Amino acid sequence: MGKLIVKKFGGTSVADAERIEAVADNVEAEIQKGNKVTVVLSAMGSSTDDLIELAKEINPEPDLREYDALVSTGEQISVALLAMALLKRGIKGKSYTAYQLGIKTNSSHSRARILDVEVSKITSELDEGVVPVITGFQGMNEVGDITTLGRGGSDTTGVALAVALNADECQIYTDVDGVFTTDPRVCSKARLLKNVSFEEMLELSGSGAKVLQLRAVEYASKFNLPLRVLSSFKKGEGTLVQEEKNIMERPIVSGISSIDSEAKLTIRGVPDIPGVAAKILSPISEAGIEVDVIVQNISAENNTDFTFTVDKNDAKKAEDILQKTSQTLGGGSIEVDDDIAKISIVGRGMRAHAGVASKMFQALAKHEINISMITTSEIKISVVIKKEEMKKAVQALHDAFDLDKELDT
Amino acid sequence: MGKLIVKKFGGTSVADAERIEAVADNVEAEIQKGNKVTVVLSAMGSSTDDLIELAKEINPEPDLREYDALVSTGEQISVALLAMALLKRGIKGKSYTAYQLGIKTNSSHSRARILDVEVSKITSELDEGVVPVITGFQGMNEVGDITTLGRGGSDTTGVALAVALNADECQIYTDVDGVFTTDPRVCSKARLLKNVSFEEMLELSGSGAKVLQLRAVEYASKFNLPLRVLSSFKKGEGTLVQEEKNIMERPIVSGISSIDSEAKLTIRGVPDIPGVAAKILSPISEAGIEVDVIVQNISAENNTDFTFTVDKNDAKKAEDILQKTSQTLGGGSIEVDDDIAKISIVGRGMRAHAGVASKMFQALAKHEINISMITTSEIKISVVIKKEEMKKAVQALHDAFDLDKELDT
Repeated sequence: MGKLIVKKFGGTSVADAERIEAVADNVEAEIQKGNKVTVVLSAMGSSTDDLIELAKEINPEPDLREYDALVSTGEQISVALLAMALLKRGIKGKSYTAYQLGIKTNSSHSRARILDVEVSKITSELDEGVVPVITGFQGMNEVGDITTLGRGGSDTTGVALAVALNADECQIYTDVDGVFTTDPRVCSKARLLKNVSFEEMLELSGSGAKVLQLRAVEYASKFNLPLRVLSSFKKGEGTLVQEEKNIMERPIVSGISSIDSEAKLTIRGVPDIPGVAAKILSPISEAGIEVDVIVQNISAENNTDFTFTVDKNDAKKAEDILQKTSQTLGGGSIEVDDDIAKISIVGRGMRAHAGVASKMFQALAKHEINISMITTSEIKISVVIKKEEMKKAVQALHDAFDLDKELDT
Repeated sequence: MGKLIVKKFGGTSVADAERIEAVADNVEAEIQKGNKVTVVLSAMGSSTDDLIELAKEINPEPDLREYDALVSTGEQISVALLAMALLKRGIKGKSYTAYQLGIKTNSSHSRARILDVEVSKITSELDEGVVPVITGFQGMNEVGDITTLGRGGSDTTGVALAVALNADECQIYTDVDGVFTTDPRVCSKARLLKNVSFEEMLELSGSGAKVLQLRAVEYASKFNLPLRVLSSFKKGEGTLVQEEKNIMERPIVSGISSIDSEAKLTIRGVPDIPGVAAKILSPISEAGIEVDVIVQNISAENNTDFTFTVDKNDAKKAEDILQKTSQTLGGGSIEVDDDIAKISIVGRGMRAHAGVASKMFQALAKHEINISMITTSEIKISVVIKKEEMKKAVQALHDAFDLDKELDT
């Protein structure tokens, strides 16, 4: 018996009529294998950005209910066009908006969360041989207003539908071939990973590998739904993201992520007393600023230095907040450094292997790369270094952990 | 107590952010008069055409369910933007799609007819001081598919909503100042009409004055809803279309319409027997071709010539059909002439006034304009002449019936 596959195509995969035809070919090939297909689409190319631009001409901070009503039109256009392209091939394509299907979300306009996916209509369509083509990124709240899920929300729609349909696999088509050991633009030896665990994918996503939306990976992980990342431009198996126990090969380090879009903020000489970290970070998070790496070193003479990183765009705002905090804490000077990069090595294997950290630090030392911050988690070690050394560091680590070589399985 | 006004704005009136701001100003001014307002919008400028272009890239004859899903996005964009612009002014604007309101239509995709407008949601919003901003041109059928009403359908939505809401007036904003005695591009003496009856408006619309969609006028006439045509670019009272009995001034001729987009087809020497007209026209209408003027002259020797006009775009198709009909009827030659114009004079007053037709024909004769066809209805006389004489004919008739002079009322 055939499988049930949910296929999600991103904006670049449906950017114009030609790309939409290619998606229709992809669906046709899947059906010819004897599988059933449900499709989830993003808006065409930059059309969502164009709509946001239009809204900002009216009001730089538009009402969010209306913002959602506006930007949700992008996906409605792409699903109708794909349905037309499928029908041309004799495939019973049928477009549906999230609204028509009643994909329920909460009321947090522009960043809503899916609450419930009613699939009875889709399953009955699938039984009739229909290929439902569904708008990603959107839903409706309990009073019938249109909502959107925020950037990359189509991934979440795809996964939520796949889970609700009990699909065999959710395929996320993008403009990259899959998940790589590291960013191919940073390191030419980067190798496509055939398999990666949910946990590794989460750490890689959170560390700058923007192939998949974090929320979608969390969702798939929670319901143990196999997720495949692959290219809509090239043939290939892509990367299968799944439960660790299904992955036979288990390298010590699976991948390296790098990110140079953050700034480092340090507040010096704060009193080393309980609660000081909360006093520093609470006003930051209350201002809606997301904090990434946090490091507090041991104190000298009851004073300590507290350092964290935020997105560069938030650095100025965070600095201002920090100045105020420093005054109330009687702390010292504030330093801001946006000339930094964060490199993380990620791998399930490192749990069982001592010496991964020292191997990492040795490799960096050998290339005379100075480390200014270090943090570790169960399956990840991150270091902050100077921005201009990012590429050199990634290449050094890629070599040190033999990531260009496939494991014998 | 304030009035309830439904305002419908067409594509050129919401073509860009600046125009949308102007619409918001218009709504604000109406509210400041103490009136309640419901707004119906078309899609921005040429955006519907752009969407159709996109569909045709996929398939020149796209599936109509998907066509409707696609093109209905245009109005969704304009209503969200106007709601944003109203909110910026402190007015509680709120966008609604026809789908959200449940505007029911039949299932004739791309040319659906409104069956039912449920207004309880709108009236409760109006009671809360909200200005509902509603997508024109669209609805949903009984299985929950998106439908569209066809070109100019937003007028119909406006009128249908105004009727269902029991509104005091439906205002149709366009890029012209109102209804003129004749096309100002054809005759510089054309004068804006303050009042016109539904019946006259229907005859004028049907004869080429494309200010209002015929269906919308019929609908308003049926429910006796005052309709006002006015410009969204200039201040002014526009033209009020209403029941004849409310119009005090009653000129003999109210307006002249002219149209040069038709072709004339003649089939010569068909047997003059009962049913021959039906035999000629049935295959034409079955092919979906609309026939305008029909003339059959008295027969000579049991043979007659049968002439009718169709849109130029349909002329070739009609000719082919006519060739086949001619063979089965044993008829003679087919003649096609697309070098024609149709001029109509329209006026409720002409019923009671003999001599209107002769005055018309004399005016044309005086300018040596030859008439090739004549048809008449209760309140209209149409003639078909050579295309190059259209302008001269309209000017001659405009003068002959003193249309540049306002009646004393």
